[in-house]
Order: sequence, then structure tokens, then C-alpha cells
Amino acid sequence: MKVYLAGPEVFLPNAREVLDQKIELTRRYGFVPVSPGDLEVPATDTKRAKGLAISSINQRLMMSTDMIIANLTPFRGVAADVGTAFELGFMCARGCPAYAFSNTASNHFDRVAHHYEGRIQADGDNRLRGPDGLAMEDFDMVDNLMLDGGVDAQGGAIVTREVDPERLYVDHQAFEECLRIAAARFLR
Amino acid sequence: MKVYLAGPEVFLPNAREVLDQKIELTRRYGFVPVSPGDLEVPATDTKRAKGLAISSINQRLMMSTDMIIANLTPFRGVAADVGTAFELGFMCARGCPAYAFSNTASNHFDRVAHHYEGRIQADGDNRLRGPDGLAMEDFDMVDNLMLDGGVDAQGGAIVTREVDPERLYVDHQAFEECLRIAAARFLR
Repeated sequence: MKVYLAGPEVFLPNAREVLDQKIELTRRYGFVPVSPGDLEVPATDTKRAKGLAISSINQRLMMSTDMIIANLTPFRGVAADVGTAFELGFMCARGCPAYAFSNTASNHFDRVAHHYEGRIQADGDNRLRGPDGLAMEDFDMVDNLMLDGGVDAQGGAIVTREVDPERLYVDHQAFEECLRIAAARFLR
Repeated sequence: MKVYLAGPEVFLPNAREVLDQKIELTRRYGFVPVSPGDLEVPATDTKRAKGLAISSINQRLMMSTDMIIANLTPFRGVAADVGTAFELGFMCARGCPAYAFSNTASNHFDRVAHHYEGRIQADGDNRLRGPDGLAMEDFDMVDNLMLDGGVDAQGGAIVTREVDPERLYVDHQAFEECLRIAAARFLR
């Protein structure tokens, strides 16, 4: 069973090392790991062509897999990496089992409240909004409801864990818990 | 031809009004609009159950459509709304034509550079990184390469336009340009 390892680890200075650790862990639980960056990017003429080539490779890699484990740890702000969110949606539409994790225990609502520095008000319908008027999702969810809901609809789980901020993108315990849950479901 | 209208407009104080404007424009171009929030959410016992019910409705709505137009205007930070990114990935995996727009002309690289307040440095491989060490995508793209690449792979287009900041989520000109391009491709 092939597992696509989605997440923002590709942006780390030691990306190769961290991806290799995830690949090794995935094998240890009996799955075949498929990781973005596993294929060579062809030479291209423009920056945009290079980006499109990488996207095309990742789409092809996803099409070759049976399951996704998505790292939804907040990335440059309140929410998950949008590339990872795209990939989670992609695999959910394919009907693949989907698991996710986040290396912070704070939920979506807490993070958005922090983003608004607590300046939150209820509107006439008792819906909480920031000073910009945008409604806050208040659903006890790790991230936007489409992400949590997508994982749930595929029978998966989202594991959260508060890690040392220095290890935000390199702690593998929540990821490993996803592997453990998925292995118990599919490989025993 | 049914079009799913994805975007963060659902969070606006006047969401119903803005969604209705998009619905009306979509009809005017000859498409059948399908908009999140078009179905009634059943009563639920918990917040989380309510969120899951909304997600389930939106997934069902997407499954009933043939195309997506996604609003990738930055939402609470440097990137698109992650719920919209999930939906774009979902529709790309279904092989549906995908269009997108953003109501800012700044590209992904510019926004991330601004997020880092210009404190960017090239690493040994000449890859630009923020002070947190995270690599910046530099691919002349509107957002993360999976989003731009997903639209491109479905033969779609991404329209960008700088609008008055006060009209960031309510200006429909870039959205309308997507409708025009899609109508020329599919309805003439």
C-alpha cells in the first residue's frame, strides 16, 4: 500500500534529511512511501515552467498512491500549507484513505482568535467575527472544516500534539501515530 | 454545465448577498451555479458534528458539478483560503476544468517576501529563504505551485487583478473574466 507523504517539510533547510526520516518510518510500519521530490525535475526555460513541472510530478506521484498522510501544522500563519490542503483534497476526491497530523495542539478557532488578538465580536446571529468582519469557524476542528471533514469522510484520523516550537516541522511523533492507526486498519 | 463557486466569500458579513451576485453572474454566462451554503445544514448535537455536516454537503455539491472557479485571493495571511485550496485539489482530481482568480496582482513570491519583511537570504544552493529557514517558492506563480499547476493541468486560467482593498472579497471583475474565458471554451 503506497502512501503519499504531504507536507511543508519540502521547504526546510534540511528537507532531504527530514523527508528521508519520514520515508524510513513509513517503511517500518509496512507501507510504501511516496514523497514529493522523489522524482527528478526536468530542465525548463522559465521559473513558471519549472513550477508547473514540479506540480505535474507531484500530481503523478499522488495518482500512483493509495493513501495520504498530510502534515497540517500551521505554515506561515494561522492555517495549513495550501499546497498540502490541495493535495489532501486531491486524494479525498480519489476516494483514498486520508490521515493528517498537526504539531500544535491549538485548534483552528484558537489560532484565528490569536490572529485577531482577541478582538472578536458576535454578530446579530451570534456568529463570531474578527475586526475585518470575517466569520470565524467555531467547530472544534484542527483547521478549516473542509480539511477535517475530508479526513473524516475517508474514515481517517487527525492526530495533534504540542511539540517544542524548535521542532515544529521535524518532530515525527504525530506522524508516526498516523502510521500506527493506518497500519492497524489496513495491514493487520 | 454546473460550476462550483469556491472561495472565502462564505465568511463575509454579507455572504448571502455576495454569493447571490456570483450566482447571478454565473447564470448570465450560461452556466449553472453551485455555491457552498446552497443546501440546508441538518441539526447536530456538537460543534464538530455541524462542521462535518457542512463539509459533507460541500463535498456532495462538488460531486454534482463539472467545473470549479476558485477565489484564491489571500485570506488571513500570505496564501489562499485552505478550504478553497482543498476544493480546488478535489475538483482537479475529478478531472474537471479548473479556473481561479485573485483580487490582488501581487504574486506568491512578493507576498512571502513581504511576510518576511524582506529579510531573505540565498542559501548555498542559491535558494532564497526567510529568517525561519523556510525556502520561498520563486516560480512566477499566484500561489503555491500545486494550485497554479492544478489549474494549468486542467487547461484552465488564473486571472489576477488589483482591486481597492475595501473591495478585496466583493469585486467580481476577475471572477467574471474566468466566466468569460470558460464560456468561450465550453459554451460557444
